[in-house]
Amino acid sequence: MEARISLITLGVGDFERARRFYRDGLGWPMSGASGEDVAFFRTGGVVLALYPRPLLAADAHLSPDGSGFGGIALAHNVATREAVDAVLAEAVAAGATLLKPAVDAEWGGYSGYFADPDGYPWEVAWNPHFPLGPDGSVQLPE
Amino acid sequence: MEARISLITLGVGDFERARRFYRDGLGWPMSGASGEDVAFFRTGGVVLALYPRPLLAADAHLSPDGSGFGGIALAHNVATREAVDAVLAEAVAAGATLLKPAVDAEWGGYSGYFADPDGYPWEVAWNPHFPLGPDGSVQLPE
Repeated sequence: MEARISLITLGVGDFERARRFYRDGLGWPMSGASGEDVAFFRTGGVVLALYPRPLLAADAHLSPDGSGFGGIALAHNVATREAVDAVLAEAVAAGATLLKPAVDAEWGGYSGYFADPDGYPWEVAWNPHFPLGPDGSVQLPE
Repeated sequence: MEARISLITLGVGDFERARRFYRDGLGWPMSGASGEDVAFFRTGGVVLALYPRPLLAADAHLSPDGSGFGGIALAHNVATREAVDAVLAEAVAAGATLLKPAVDAEWGGYSGYFADPDGYPWEVAWNPHFPLGPDGSVQLPE
């Protein structure tokens, strides 16, 4: 199995609300391959998809039941410390909830968290140890 | 906020077990930036990170409590229909649980699901409508 994540699908409770947040609030580019109950966004090397949560669970042969922290966090790394506060503010203006205002992190960077309309946590981080490449992706050390 | 996902962090219940699955079982390249309780894998344009679930929840200022379906599915797209079965078998051999054997999908492809040792669902899919680029990433239509 090659080391590759092709898509990340968020199972959403209110599809219209989620699509509005990512497409209109954050201004992310939605693909024409999107449909009435699925949305695909180009986000660098990985696709972010939105799909109704019960349908996603059914597709995976899982019970849709679940509550509390789902165990996964997404992260959006930025090139400067200042950009962290700006992006958090932009997300909140678009309808996100601030989970954690940005603070100096013990690992030497600066980061905070917001929750999208379905509660999925996003870290917004500046990490001086993980420089960003020309395409904006994190350049991991070997 | 640029359209970019930099990292996906899986909050894991048994860090050693999870690291063994991705590093040794699937053979994914782990970065030297990894530490005693964090692992970073290069996976195309996005980084997959493993981190103990309680620490991840605390970092995001969330309660670690949660159960059932977390609402997020990851997907690994492959270039051929045959590769779907091969990758599912490889994941199961590495310690994954088969959630759904591959079937012909209503959207015209072929896909199945496995769960990693923490239960996170991975779809393995061949999608003739989403060709893969030279780097293996999904090429979304405009």
